[in-house]
Amino acid sequence: MAEYTAYFNGEWMPFSQVKIDPMDRGFLVGDVIFDVARTFNGKSFRMGQHIDRLYRSLKYVRLDPGLSPREMHDISEEVITRNQEHLGEAGDFTITQFITRGPGQWSRSAGPPAVCVKAAPVAFGRYASLFKDGAHGVITRTRSYPVDALDPKVKHYSRMNFNLADMEAADVDPEGWPILTDTYGNLTEGTGYNVFLVTDGVIRTPGDRNILQGISRGMVFDLANQLEIPLVEEDLQPYDMYTADEAFFSSTSPCVLPVTVVDKREVGDGRPGPIVQQLLAAWSESVGMDIVDQFERFERS
Amino acid sequence: MAEYTAYFNGEWMPFSQVKIDPMDRGFLVGDVIFDVARTFNGKSFRMGQHIDRLYRSLKYVRLDPGLSPREMHDISEEVITRNQEHLGEAGDFTITQFITRGPGQWSRSAGPPAVCVKAAPVAFGRYASLFKDGAHGVITRTRSYPVDALDPKVKHYSRMNFNLADMEAADVDPEGWPILTDTYGNLTEGTGYNVFLVTDGVIRTPGDRNILQGISRGMVFDLANQLEIPLVEEDLQPYDMYTADEAFFSSTSPCVLPVTVVDKREVGDGRPGPIVQQLLAAWSESVGMDIVDQFERFERS
Amino acid sequence: MAEYTAYFNGEWMPFSQVKIDPMDRGFLVGDVIFDVARTFNGKSFRMGQHIDRLYRSLKYVRLDPGLSPREMHDISEEVITRNQEHLGEAGDFTITQFITRGPGQWSRSAGPPAVCVKAAPVAFGRYASLFKDGAHGVITRTRSYPVDALDPKVKHYSRMNFNLADMEAADVDPEGWPILTDTYGNLTEGTGYNVFLVTDGVIRTPGDRNILQGISRGMVFDLANQLEIPLVEEDLQPYDMYTADEAFFSSTSPCVLPVTVVDKREVGDGRPGPIVQQLLAAWSESVGMDIVDQFERFERS
Amino acid sequence: MAEYTAYFNGEWMPFSQVKIDPMDRGFLVGDVIFDVARTFNGKSFRMGQHIDRLYRSLKYVRLDPGLSPREMHDISEEVITRNQEHLGEAGDFTITQFITRGPGQWSRSAGPPAVCVKAAPVAFGRYASLFKDGAHGVITRTRSYPVDALDPKVKHYSRMNFNLADMEAADVDPEGWPILTDTYGNLTEGTGYNVFLVTDGVIRTPGDRNILQGISRGMVFDLANQLEIPLVEEDLQPYDMYTADEAFFSSTSPCVLPVTVVDKREVGDGRPGPIVQQLLAAWSESVGMDIVDQFERFERS
Amino acid sequence: MAEYTAYFNGEWMPFSQVKIDPMDRGFLVGDVIFDVARTFNGKSFRMGQHIDRLYRSLKYVRLDPGLSPREMHDISEEVITRNQEHLGEAGDFTITQFITRGPGQWSRSAGPPAVCVKAAPVAFGRYASLFKDGAHGVITRTRSYPVDALDPKVKHYSRMNFNLADMEAADVDPEGWPILTDTYGNLTEGTGYNVFLVTDGVIRTPGDRNILQGISRGMVFDLANQLEIPLVEEDLQPYDMYTADEAFFSSTSPCVLPVTVVDKREVGDGRPGPIVQQLLAAWSESVGMDIVDQFERFERS
Amino acid sequence: MAEYTAYFNGEWMPFSQVKIDPMDRGFLVGDVIFDVARTFNGKSFRMGQHIDRLYRSLKYVRLDPGLSPREMHDISEEVITRNQEHLGEAGDFTITQFITRGPGQWSRSAGPPAVCVKAAPVAFGRYASLFKDGAHGVITRTRSYPVDALDPKVKHYSRMNFNLADMEAADVDPEGWPILTDTYGNLTEGTGYNVFLVTDGVIRTPGDRNILQGISRGMVFDLANQLEIPLVEEDLQPYDMYTADEAFFSSTSPCVLPVTVVDKREVGDGRPGPIVQQLLAAWSESVGMDIVDQFERFERS
Repeated sequence: MAEYTAYFNGEWMPFSQVKIDPMDRGFLVGDVIFDVARTFNGKSFRMGQHIDRLYRSLKYVRLDPGLSPREMHDISEEVITRNQEHLGEAGDFTITQFITRGPGQWSRSAGPPAVCVKAAPVAFGRYASLFKDGAHGVITRTRSYPVDALDPKVKHYSRMNFNLADMEAADVDPEGWPILTDTYGNLTEGTGYNVFLVTDGVIRTPGDRNILQGISRGMVFDLANQLEIPLVEEDLQPYDMYTADEAFFSSTSPCVLPVTVVDKREVGDGRPGPIVQQLLAAWSESVGMDIVDQFERFERS
Repeated sequence: MAEYTAYFNGEWMPFSQVKIDPMDRGFLVGDVIFDVARTFNGKSFRMGQHIDRLYRSLKYVRLDPGLSPREMHDISEEVITRNQEHLGEAGDFTITQFITRGPGQWSRSAGPPAVCVKAAPVAFGRYASLFKDGAHGVITRTRSYPVDALDPKVKHYSRMNFNLADMEAADVDPEGWPILTDTYGNLTEGTGYNVFLVTDGVIRTPGDRNILQGISRGMVFDLANQLEIPLVEEDLQPYDMYTADEAFFSSTSPCVLPVTVVDKREVGDGRPGPIVQQLLAAWSESVGMDIVDQFERFERS
Repeated sequence: MAEYTAYFNGEWMPFSQVKIDPMDRGFLVGDVIFDVARTFNGKSFRMGQHIDRLYRSLKYVRLDPGLSPREMHDISEEVITRNQEHLGEAGDFTITQFITRGPGQWSRSAGPPAVCVKAAPVAFGRYASLFKDGAHGVITRTRSYPVDALDPKVKHYSRMNFNLADMEAADVDPEGWPILTDTYGNLTEGTGYNVFLVTDGVIRTPGDRNILQGISRGMVFDLANQLEIPLVEEDLQPYDMYTADEAFFSSTSPCVLPVTVVDKREVGDGRPGPIVQQLLAAWSESVGMDIVDQFERFERS
Repeated sequence: MAEYTAYFNGEWMPFSQVKIDPMDRGFLVGDVIFDVARTFNGKSFRMGQHIDRLYRSLKYVRLDPGLSPREMHDISEEVITRNQEHLGEAGDFTITQFITRGPGQWSRSAGPPAVCVKAAPVAFGRYASLFKDGAHGVITRTRSYPVDALDPKVKHYSRMNFNLADMEAADVDPEGWPILTDTYGNLTEGTGYNVFLVTDGVIRTPGDRNILQGISRGMVFDLANQLEIPLVEEDLQPYDMYTADEAFFSSTSPCVLPVTVVDKREVGDGRPGPIVQQLLAAWSESVGMDIVDQFERFERS
Repeated sequence: MAEYTAYFNGEWMPFSQVKIDPMDRGFLVGDVIFDVARTFNGKSFRMGQHIDRLYRSLKYVRLDPGLSPREMHDISEEVITRNQEHLGEAGDFTITQFITRGPGQWSRSAGPPAVCVKAAPVAFGRYASLFKDGAHGVITRTRSYPVDALDPKVKHYSRMNFNLADMEAADVDPEGWPILTDTYGNLTEGTGYNVFLVTDGVIRTPGDRNILQGISRGMVFDLANQLEIPLVEEDLQPYDMYTADEAFFSSTSPCVLPVTVVDKREVGDGRPGPIVQQLLAAWSESVGMDIVDQFERFERS
Repeated sequence: MAEYTAYFNGEWMPFSQVKIDPMDRGFLVGDVIFDVARTFNGKSFRMGQHIDRLYRSLKYVRLDPGLSPREMHDISEEVITRNQEHLGEAGDFTITQFITRGPGQWSRSAGPPAVCVKAAPVAFGRYASLFKDGAHGVITRTRSYPVDALDPKVKHYSRMNFNLADMEAADVDPEGWPILTDTYGNLTEGTGYNVFLVTDGVIRTPGDRNILQGISRGMVFDLANQLEIPLVEEDLQPYDMYTADEAFFSSTSPCVLPVTVVDKREVGDGRPGPIVQQLLAAWSESVGMDIVDQFERFERS
């Protein structure tokens, strides 16, 4: 496997040499903030928005990475440059930043933080077949954390509830992608992807009360606006997903991914719908490449 | 600093060589189960109960460590033996087991897990002065996870809400130890310790609906029974803590720790009370050593 | 009393011969989906929307009626035709479809379902005087089912909470029509009618999180749009109803019905307001008959 | 199939002639109260308690059956006598009373009620193999109704949420028996059975806040008392069920039924445990017959 | 009307001269703590417990009255002495202490507090007929404040929700005494009285999570213990009250008061039950006078 | 200090002579409705809106002041006229109306109410420095009352939870202004001021589900509309406030007040932002005077 170069605590090194100290609170108590962007044709996509979101999370949990947003942005771009040699084989990269709290008995006084920025190939194989077949969704019994315990808008590594939801989804459907609900039974998000429905030509998605403010989600908003497809944020329940005409996920790597089955019920006619196709086409055009085609070409990688 | 020997994935090695792979779900999504026991006079305390609780957590999250409880128990004892040379300097050990999910895109299919068992000196310095002065408690705005998001009876590393509570406590009182509440406003637990009150001679503590089933908490139950001090589990609110005669925490290292201030209000007369003293004396007797005295002797270490 | 013809399990028969098997889960555990449309001047109104909603409910509870939506629609129209002889006396019809699960120990394997489509005279007498006097609303202590127990968007026969609310409303006001709230204290709906307020010229109604998606409610949306009266969906509380300028219900039979008293407080000046009158006039125009006049003419029937 | 005699609205008739009027609120809005007792060796068991519970439900929903508890009791016994001829083939009977609200636009003024008391063979075939193999439990996403919407202590026919839970359980495990939770994530009950756990020799079961007050549940309390097995009512969560030593259901027909798997995790060692066996033995003794043996003998019926 | 002497801010004066400054936060924002005791035969009853509870409330809201508990107790007794001349006419006294925050823009810096201790005749007329007829209870839609907004164990003057509940109770039953529920639908308390049920010989009452810790409630506990009547604290719902054998309130003036109707349903046989009578007799004996007889004798006063 | 003239129960008198009867339910149980307007250059501002809101509150709690809205409005203006002599020294006035329930054992039958309308100088000193430095916000653990206990849209004096929040804010930041959240963790309001954020040029504020419908809040809506600054009402969480570009409060006296720190985190760059300045300028223009300048000039008063 190719050896990627990563930034770690001020140095550049092979990512295989990046290791987490088991006494770092980042491991011990999940005290880590992170973000993930990707490239299209080797160029970063909305990196500024990812950096902004990263620093919003850092501010929320009062973790100072010792780098300014500008510096973090520059390092993130440099990671792409330094791994240029792998681009041909990889197709495109994901760029991940993570910052741990560092060692200490209390978060209030722990440190120094560990800061890592790294590249990896987009996981084309995970998604390739789903653009045609659609992903299967399963709405899980396990709930999202409520905002007064831990706001889902913060992007962190303390996600044991996501792990539980992942296994519950597989109980119902071996191909199931989990979708969580909030304390009140409203749909929130998946374990790394936002959820969209289409009903009577309107794109519908939960507001950001109990979800991550996805950058890809924002891109869907922009494309819908450009395509003049109405889009609303509102409280949605499983009923809305069962009875939608279309459903799809948005996420950094696949951009948008059709959902054709949820809780063993077909969504619409059980095939990817026209609006998700429109969004993929418009997204492809905006990044100057055929997104789905790339997934198919790199499926084996 | 002394080099401790740890068990890691079937091998024995210096703990300084134990590193966490940043692609392990244990780091990436907090998918780790752990437990911590301690020794008294170098002998493990209720290790069987710790191992049982560890396997209850593992069963809950469906993580197979590849070791039977008996094997895990034996390794845990062997860690003590292998670090015997450090006992004099350390005073006593904490013994930690942790099991990560391993790498993978889904918890349902990730692996292999990483398994570590390690020893470290008890952090005497953290607690020594508090047996006399009492800890300060702060009831935080940040809540415990509700059981339908992530049951607090599972002992895991996805604890970002504990980190937030830790910093909020410091906002109110620089010496503040956080105490969380559940969704309904009932007291739950601290970030690694259970909470007890004494009112009119009765020890009161939250039931285990939204808390970890502390082994030290269980020891308090046993000692109270032995000392014929009535003890009840019930829903408790901040009012109960503000108006209690005594308050104390229970935790593996300090056993029980008096609490003399909560939310800037004195508990009782603001000094450690008689029942916490009785419990410490009885606990000391049961383990054949003076617990508080050891904390004072090893404070600097 | 006139003998109406109904469709029942593939046959046409007098409705008086339609009987429910007490071992059908439809009776035993309320496992029934239904819908109700009405005619104006003997012509069905928005039957397609009623059929769509019926099939959304069926999909939610995974009940297959053995008829396509098209077939169900045709049968529903045929019921009108077959009862044509009664139209003069009846004035207009309600058309009800219901589908039971059938007998069996589990819903997962029960069947065959019973399917009935039937006509009945609109209950003019129930509503006639209320167009002038206004209905009385009572906000009940009994709550709507939360969506994670049973989504109110599903139209089913398991409505014991509606029965309780009905009797509570009568406790407060013998003429009281119950209005329920959700778990959070927001107004939801009545026991078969949606709720609307008018404040400063804006029509306000709860969103569809915890209510049935009324077809008459949708007609109010369309008429408001046509009349250029602003209309918003939002969380509403009893305060909003007590202090509204107008209030009204929407429901299949009466279309819209003014509400002049709620919880013993007059709404506005205690008389039906101008906007409900406008809506009735526009609705009448759209169906080519005077709705209120018909209620008065057929009051005795 | 044998023709059983039933009481219906003051008359005795073959049960096959008992039919429910589709205009009865009992069908239309689930406005029915019921209870189910059984016989052992042809003798009714705790019929008085069943009648008491039936009248508590009737009082709650303000439904007057027009019969005193004494009369209802006598009719219930007479049903047994009148069906004596079927006892040999049936093995034993269940005796069901149900009372509907009757027809009407409002519960407050509807009537007259329909009253039915009937006998049927115990469904031995449904349970026989489970005494040896244990039932499989699945904790569902669908919740119990909260008490402020509809108190689960009322025994009624408005149970669409039970139907949903039934199908969800089958999604996870084709043999799955659903177990619901309340709004707070606590275990409540199954769709016709109470839930018990055994941990460290103590029988544990939810208190009656959100469950039916099972008569069989009460019998378990009595037998536990007689056998000097400690039993506590407390809030229980899925964690408690996953980590219990034993689990079992109580219900009128099977009395108690071992549960050996829950959410795909084995309970204890995955086989029926000693305490459920003790309870079955003591119950058998108290009714003068071998309960399990009868299930095996009548399995085919 | 007789002129009673009151303590007010260090002085003794006729109570008619005690006036509240409209700029005192005690009026402006309900920032007042209070307590009420009564006398039997002119002697104070459990005054020490009332003073303790008063100081628990003061500690909770961080309001310093400038008097020690001992001083407050002495003043409270002196109020009785100073009004001795009115005892014959009054029958017995209630003794009220209240402490306001004083003027200021913030509670954190407001002051000085106003402190008043006063006597008044027991309101015999309010309760006299109810010992024979029983009070009527109405369970209201208005809820108790949840503990995370304002703990009901604090005895304060910010009780607008009690006023709303009072009027709602009168809507249902002109003689209705309101009973509130908590956020989860459990019974809490009335607007100045605790609630008790009797079922199968056991006295049942809500635990103190969401209620005032009534001193009279505590006396009921003591008398039940003395009379060997079992008493349990547990979550209770309207179902429990509708189906109880007896119900009663406890409160400072009437001690215990039978409840014979709740939500228009008779409790038990609709007459005061034997256990409330036993409690009244035992209470009378313990205070050396016939409590009910005094109410009847002083009814007109 | 200047002696202001007030209206009290039909008479005009020096406000120093207005006293509250301690037996008035307005004091005893916080049974008071009020409102507060202010003048600019001695002219009342949106008095009609204040009077409307006052009567909405009165209707909610069913308190009849014995004056029509027109009469209350006229008296409110007369208060300004009667205190004209103080205007020069005061700068401007606040005008407060309050109505108490009056004495009585039940709100349902209490009375007569006390009605007061009074003027006082605007508290310039409290706010003057904050226009430049910004206020500090602290999000408190104490919650707003939920609407089913007491709707925050009612303007009353039962505000003990505000007092608790006030002291908690001071625990975290001596200059802290409390901001409460609702039961679900959403931001609601301060203890007398509404909360606004600015993110990416959009003004965001909580909808009126759990807040007072501030008249100044409405003015912000109008000015934003006039200035063509987009403004949305939505659920907001602490995350939104920590990561906003600007934050400000609205309130009768200061109109709008910049917030520069929240929970010890700087809002934006920690200085008052451009939008709050725009609003202050536009507000000043609309009332024909420089609002901030007046605060500075009258700071000492």
